Amino acid sequence: MPDAPFVAPSAFWEGRYVLVTGGFGFIGSTLARRLCGQGAVVTVLDCLLPQFGGNRFNLQGYEDRIRSHVFDLRDGSALESLLEGQEVIFNLAGQTSHLDSIRDPETDLDINVTAQLRLLERCRQVVPKVRLVYASTRQLYGRPKYLPVDEGHPIYPVDVNGINKYSAEMYHILYSQIYELSACVLRLTNTIGPRMRIRDARQTFLGIWVRQLIEGRPIEVWGGEQLRDFNDVEDVVDALLIAGEQCDLPLEPYNLGSAEVISLADLARLMIEIHGSGELLVMPFPAERKKN
Amino acid sequence: MPDAPFVAPSAFWEGRYVLVTGGFGFIGSTLARRLCGQGAVVTVLDCLLPQFGGNRFNLQGYEDRIRSHVFDLRDGSALESLLEGQEVIFNLAGQTSHLDSIRDPETDLDINVTAQLRLLERCRQVVPKVRLVYASTRQLYGRPKYLPVDEGHPIYPVDVNGINKYSAEMYHILYSQIYELSACVLRLTNTIGPRMRIRDARQTFLGIWVRQLIEGRPIEVWGGEQLRDFNDVEDVVDALLIAGEQCDLPLEPYNLGSAEVISLADLARLMIEIHGSGELLVMPFPAERKKN
Repeated sequence: MPDAPFVAPSAFWEGRYVLVTGGFGFIGSTLARRLCGQGAVVTVLDCLLPQFGGNRFNLQGYEDRIRSHVFDLRDGSALESLLEGQEVIFNLAGQTSHLDSIRDPETDLDINVTAQLRLLERCRQVVPKVRLVYASTRQLYGRPKYLPVDEGHPIYPVDVNGINKYSAEMYHILYSQIYELSACVLRLTNTIGPRMRIRDARQTFLGIWVRQLIEGRPIEVWGGEQLRDFNDVEDVVDALLIAGEQCDLPLEPYNLGSAEVISLADLARLMIEIHGSGELLVMPFPAERKKN
Repeated sequence: MPDAPFVAPSAFWEGRYVLVTGGFGFIGSTLARRLCGQGAVVTVLDCLLPQFGGNRFNLQGYEDRIRSHVFDLRDGSALESLLEGQEVIFNLAGQTSHLDSIRDPETDLDINVTAQLRLLERCRQVVPKVRLVYASTRQLYGRPKYLPVDEGHPIYPVDVNGINKYSAEMYHILYSQIYELSACVLRLTNTIGPRMRIRDARQTFLGIWVRQLIEGRPIEVWGGEQLRDFNDVEDVVDALLIAGEQCDLPLEPYNLGSAEVISLADLARLMIEIHGSGELLVMPFPAERKKN
């Protein structure tokens, strides 16, 4: 899959030392490829745990150009030497599953908060002037009180994951205020494109839909009227690169969203149409989901 | 010091099984005494670590009437048997120091977030219908954008402690929404009264002022124009008891605040006047404080 830069390459990245946490993931690997193409010296960290998004396949062909470490951010001890010399960190590592965060909230906390705090602590000590871009989630707004959901929308997380991602956001902003490092927080919505996880619904529900279509199974939709928006992964990478380069952006979180929304049922129908075949199965919410 | 109930005792507490975390602390012990006086079967948990607020002296004279366990909420394993049979939990355990949370953010996170999440997880498993009252802090609003600071004021924590207390609040509210337990979140301001910590400024700056007065040393005030409000500990206990009893209160955090505010310099002068002697020393903010 060729790289597809939609913004003009910037001389800013040439020879720049950049670290991507979660770099074997869907978005992380797409970013790492783009950075590499712009001449950055890229290192990726990824724990490669099977339930998360990392996959060596995502950086196939880049083995000689991108340094990679299988590393779990929860193990803070080796972080110091990995951070040394880095100028920009794209902090994309995290647990993204809503349901996993309810089933095992402590693991979500360890990954999305404790490890993040540890990373920030090491950053301020080892690379005190580093630029950090943190990938957060629009999920922390909870059920929309109005549309479109802008950055002023109140925060009402509906799951442990939302609370924890919000904490990590606040840590990034606080550390930018009281220390020399500077951070930018981006709140991502459903991101789609090549290399997205289709094994299950952990990254986005759309992954499992793609799989169901390919395997000739019906797309199972709970409810169907819910509205969603989507970003192309290359657009998200554009935004990440801008955020990494512009250190003087105001220190408020930014939504990455699309102006267009579509209902789940309409989306499923559209995918079936594009695929040329497929079946839509609308189901009532199961009890566990409803409660959450 | 005699108990001083300002609200009429309620039959609700007679024979009720009540757990107070942080029960050897200033507010916790005052609450435990009141509950005991109203016929509740009271158990207190406290880690009694020296840098926190717990002190055996605070429950002197109640040794035969209140069960106590030296217990750190971070050690989740024994929590199950301590929770069994409890009907109301006053969750007052926590790290309260602003500066400690900046110096050692991971410990603040462990105590104020990880241990809290663990407690809630054990609660939903062991005492699924328990009533929880969580003592949070007004500090999480950050610098006031308007006065008085009401519950609709935006949340801008200025330290790690504020972020972590806010997370724990959100956990309590989320668990009330998705499980059977019910929680009430109270945001406390400076609380004063008998048994308050005067060893240092970790609980409230007023503690160290009292000590400075008693020891004939000048009261050291940074700045002096900052406005603060105060609650009498018995009023706070009133609010805690109401929150414990009223399970149908709307699930939003409540500020416990006083309508009256006073500047730090005026407060110091008032204390000197009441004490009959003393000296006020107004100083510029030290660099570390200013940054925070």
